[in-house]
Amino acid sequence: MKNFEFKIIKKSKESKFLRLGQIKTPNGIIHIPNFVPVATRAALRGMLFAEAKKSGLEIAILNTYHLWVSGAYKIIHKFGGLHRFINFKIPLMTDSGGFQVFSLGFSREHGVGKIADIFPEEKSRDVRRPDYSGKNLVKITDRGVYFKEERSGKKLFLTPEKSIKIQKMLGADFIFAFDECTSPLNDYEYTKKALERTHKWAIRSLKAFGKPKNQAIFGIIQGGAYKDLRKESVKFISSLPFFGFGIGGSLGKSKEEMKEVLSWVIPDLVENKPRHLLGIGEIDDIFSAVELGIDLMDCVMPTRWARHGTALTFQGRLNLENRKNLSDKSSIDAKCQCFVCKNYSRAYISHLVRSKEINGIILLTHHNLTWMFNLMKMIRKSIKNNSFMELKKKVIRTL
Amino acid sequence: MKNFEFKIIKKSKESKFLRLGQIKTPNGIIHIPNFVPVATRAALRGMLFAEAKKSGLEIAILNTYHLWVSGAYKIIHKFGGLHRFINFKIPLMTDSGGFQVFSLGFSREHGVGKIADIFPEEKSRDVRRPDYSGKNLVKITDRGVYFKEERSGKKLFLTPEKSIKIQKMLGADFIFAFDECTSPLNDYEYTKKALERTHKWAIRSLKAFGKPKNQAIFGIIQGGAYKDLRKESVKFISSLPFFGFGIGGSLGKSKEEMKEVLSWVIPDLVENKPRHLLGIGEIDDIFSAVELGIDLMDCVMPTRWARHGTALTFQGRLNLENRKNLSDKSSIDAKCQCFVCKNYSRAYISHLVRSKEINGIILLTHHNLTWMFNLMKMIRKSIKNNSFMELKKKVIRTL
Repeated sequence: MKNFEFKIIKKSKESKFLRLGQIKTPNGIIHIPNFVPVATRAALRGMLFAEAKKSGLEIAILNTYHLWVSGAYKIIHKFGGLHRFINFKIPLMTDSGGFQVFSLGFSREHGVGKIADIFPEEKSRDVRRPDYSGKNLVKITDRGVYFKEERSGKKLFLTPEKSIKIQKMLGADFIFAFDECTSPLNDYEYTKKALERTHKWAIRSLKAFGKPKNQAIFGIIQGGAYKDLRKESVKFISSLPFFGFGIGGSLGKSKEEMKEVLSWVIPDLVENKPRHLLGIGEIDDIFSAVELGIDLMDCVMPTRWARHGTALTFQGRLNLENRKNLSDKSSIDAKCQCFVCKNYSRAYISHLVRSKEINGIILLTHHNLTWMFNLMKMIRKSIKNNSFMELKKKVIRTL
Repeated sequence: MKNFEFKIIKKSKESKFLRLGQIKTPNGIIHIPNFVPVATRAALRGMLFAEAKKSGLEIAILNTYHLWVSGAYKIIHKFGGLHRFINFKIPLMTDSGGFQVFSLGFSREHGVGKIADIFPEEKSRDVRRPDYSGKNLVKITDRGVYFKEERSGKKLFLTPEKSIKIQKMLGADFIFAFDECTSPLNDYEYTKKALERTHKWAIRSLKAFGKPKNQAIFGIIQGGAYKDLRKESVKFISSLPFFGFGIGGSLGKSKEEMKEVLSWVIPDLVENKPRHLLGIGEIDDIFSAVELGIDLMDCVMPTRWARHGTALTFQGRLNLENRKNLSDKSSIDAKCQCFVCKNYSRAYISHLVRSKEINGIILLTHHNLTWMFNLMKMIRKSIKNNSFMELKKKVIRTL
């Protein structure tokens, strides 16, 4: 029996690429489509893994960059890998570290994130958020990437070999090939050059990975918002023996462009391997991506909004910082059955959030993650019942 | 049947005032001696009430001052009181608000806390901690206290009547009379004058309290570290129909003086009413106080240390900020059976604490509170088994 298996359970007739399936790993099964919360430094901020699993967590993604520059990966390796370090059996992924490095480069110079307009309204209260202040701290060569780590000021060098070596030391179930992540404002010429590098790095990543039994590797499709580059990348990356594929880099300047990019990529991908959309996870984007054939998505959104006092609801986002919630006896979301919605009023949570009590973060993180897990369960159920398009319409209308 | 009852279960032969008992309230039973964690704004920072109760929480104290100046008391009143607001059945206390007000006065001018040398080594990372910067912001008259609220700059006036009114609106099981809390550096003359005021305020507090069925009131014994004043205060306060007694104000300039103050007060107190030592809770102080006849003590210590990255253990305090813990596979305390000690290494917790991840606070708060609840259980068991003095010696030796 194989340690890692991907199985399609149902191909929906509702939409050409819509599908239901599961991924088997040595640490548990992941039902797809699914959402992957971000546990940057081996912790979901505000919720323990044990509690999150009870609420529906099936997989989390950790950031190699943070575990690398802090030196934590060495200790984690001594422990025998992440699962032993966190002492919990749950499928885990690590990214390649590239996104954070390249964020110090062009996307910072250009002042943009994953999609150019993502989180435009977000207040910058999270000190760890890149500040996109315009200074490019990165130098990219075919061998790898030189960059200056902001906190320590140290000059560091990251290569495909080093990224894979660190990810093997971390020992997550799924790891990602090291790729060059471009900015939505990079031009065609530059994106093409970066893509060639990404393809060479994919081969080097696979070579460095070898054939461990306890890990599987995803290749990453790049090419920005340029159709021929994306097509070229799918063709190349999907010809390599990756377990699955990530779709990374710039997804254009709007949610519409993101859908366009997916409509170029998905039809050319082999059917029997999982597809992960990197760094995407707003509610409408999740429905778009799932409809277009995406199996997994990761995003900081539910946990970051929680830290900013904001709850996800089927009536849109609810900002608990807002005074008017202070006397509201109703729960965050009348349709939510989570522990927080069953026990607490908006008033109490708003009181905690406005008082900067950390229990406000704890309650909102619990709600937001549980809400997301339930949304994904609803999505999977709707695919099973051929009512995905109906659910999509219903949910997006009320957001 | 009465809503509130105090019962002595055993008077120990090991020490004259050592005793075991219980207090009945409409929201549950409190076994004494017991420790009362501080839930300033209706939340134990880093742990939900439901979780804390499972770990052994039997009662918490909230700060009237914070719930008053933020205006939260009005909303809590609309909800029908604290228990409905937090939606949890657990005995609660509120203090009178006086301690925080008077902290803006003399103790600030004098640069001292509850005992002059308490927490000398503590780094000031908690923004809400009074800064003792020397400016007296308080004016005290027989009618009440005028003071300037630091954050808003508003001038406020607090009287016994107002404190009791707010505490009745909050609706905790136990409330405290409004007293004047003096500083360890106040002289005899001033402390005497303040004491006379406290006694008048005790009568006014009782009058304002009336005879509600769902609350009981504690009077507060003051008098600083002056024997005749403490004796006078015990005599006066214990002649009034309070449910129990708090011992408040300055407890001298050292742990030895604290014990001396208790040895003046306790013998003159009636036996059949509970005794609460206000704002004390370091491990050695708990043993001293229990031995001298104290039933309840509140302190921010376990939760504050947790936020500062420090764990309580039977081998003394463990600072998880310290690098050396980063590769330590052992649990925080080998003798502790809490969820955190059963599941996590010092390395993982240290990694979280050093990374400023809030899960570090969550895990340490869970451990520290559970550790305290277990310590109190051990103390109660030792009184039952006539081994309190043995336990005291054993625990204090290893701290």
